Amino acid sequence: MNITNNQASKALYQAIDKANEIGVSANITILDTAGHLKLFARMDDAFLGSIDISMGKAKTAMLFRMNSEKVGEFLAPEMGTYGMLQTSGGLVGFKGGMPVTTGTEILAYIGVSGGSPDQDFEIAKAGSTI
Amino acid sequence: MNITNNQASKALYQAIDKANEIGVSANITILDTAGHLKLFARMDDAFLGSIDISMGKAKTAMLFRMNSEKVGEFLAPEMGTYGMLQTSGGLVGFKGGMPVTTGTEILAYIGVSGGSPDQDFEIAKAGSTI
Amino acid sequence: MNITNNQASKALYQAIDKANEIGVSANITILDTAGHLKLFARMDDAFLGSIDISMGKAKTAMLFRMNSEKVGEFLAPEMGTYGMLQTSGGLVGFKGGMPVTTGTEILAYIGVSGGSPDQDFEIAKAGSTI
Amino acid sequence: MNITNNQASKALYQAIDKANEIGVSANITILDTAGHLKLFARMDDAFLGSIDISMGKAKTAMLFRMNSEKVGEFLAPEMGTYGMLQTSGGLVGFKGGMPVTTGTEILAYIGVSGGSPDQDFEIAKAGSTI
Repeated sequence: MNITNNQASKALYQAIDKANEIGVSANITILDTAGHLKLFARMDDAFLGSIDISMGKAKTAMLFRMNSEKVGEFLAPEMGTYGMLQTSGGLVGFKGGMPVTTGTEILAYIGVSGGSPDQDFEIAKAGSTI
Repeated sequence: MNITNNQASKALYQAIDKANEIGVSANITILDTAGHLKLFARMDDAFLGSIDISMGKAKTAMLFRMNSEKVGEFLAPEMGTYGMLQTSGGLVGFKGGMPVTTGTEILAYIGVSGGSPDQDFEIAKAGSTI
Repeated sequence: MNITNNQASKALYQAIDKANEIGVSANITILDTAGHLKLFARMDDAFLGSIDISMGKAKTAMLFRMNSEKVGEFLAPEMGTYGMLQTSGGLVGFKGGMPVTTGTEILAYIGVSGGSPDQDFEIAKAGSTI
Repeated sequence: MNITNNQASKALYQAIDKANEIGVSANITILDTAGHLKLFARMDDAFLGSIDISMGKAKTAMLFRMNSEKVGEFLAPEMGTYGMLQTSGGLVGFKGGMPVTTGTEILAYIGVSGGSPDQDFEIAKAGSTI
């Protein structure tokens, strides 16, 4: 099953509401389970450099079906996974990317960038259950 | 002046309403006046190949501040502009990309792909005045 | 011999003066004889899409040591030079790119984009002898 | 507001004067606030490898609206921001990139490469207030 527009909008606006609540201007990417772009929004004043980071986090979560920071554990230099970071056009392995689920099933992946990694995580989390 | 989230949403939903009205599943891209992604939506059942086409049309309109099909007039083989097509990462010169204005000022560029060029034009047109 | 800053500035400002004279907002690229960027200016209001075109014209002239439209003669579809257009990262084979000389020796290559091909040629021509 | 040719030239020549004063052959890039190239100069004898570094520093400063070395603080391996370095086509996070302002407003971004990071910083600094 793939995410519908209504579901993607719900995830996006839940994330935007949280971003507004904690005072962060974020870029928010929703990818379907195959990694194709479904919905994207750049909030006013969000960093331009965070557009691509938000996409990278969502893509990284999608590629391995886990949170982006979980993938990051495999990317740390001491892991010796030489070159893995550059695969699939470049992974982004820190907080802010995760699955979007109905509680049981993965429908999509969300990636957030604009604040600190912890803030990005909190915003993504708010959009991760629909 | 650059487009705000509220303005971009207005343009996007006007375009989506038109797409629904004429029965087309479209990809819709809104870029700011410098070409950075502001808002994107892929309607349910829209072609995956149209994601990039919608972005290319919006980018092409932005790069030359005119409709994408107008840029296309310069790209026709008989114009002898060999290679122009590949500049700036690749231009997309047919109907579906145009400025988004308040009537007087360009705030953004919209690119639509999913139906025929004429349908894409009609959908983009619906989102082009806010 | 390669072009100096003083020589490159002379070529650039001769081209800008011509552009102002004929009312065109141009992008102007000066490459050394090895194709490395030496000087670039985007005039106010010049098309963003013309940045890359001006670079492509200068690069194309440099790669074959002749005017960009001369290279274009080899790129026409009827020439059967399949794929040549895409070589060296993409050629741009129409008017606006040419050598910069002291009359006898090639010191650099200039590429201009912003107006019609004929206007771009005229602007480049103004910067081509120093 | 975006930078004009006169303003960009002022920033560039202030930077070149400083480079001459401290005996460094630098590459100097001026990007508008959206990251599009406005003005570029490679001083005589400047490293060819520094062309792209100067552009990368200016781009990095632009993407996050802060000095490039400030962005670099987020890129250090111990920060665990795996992959951030490769986003937006590659970031350059050390001294030499910064905003160009009138004192109050950011008009552009400057990136300098050719000397040591400290020298590049000093040269960029000289061009950063116009």
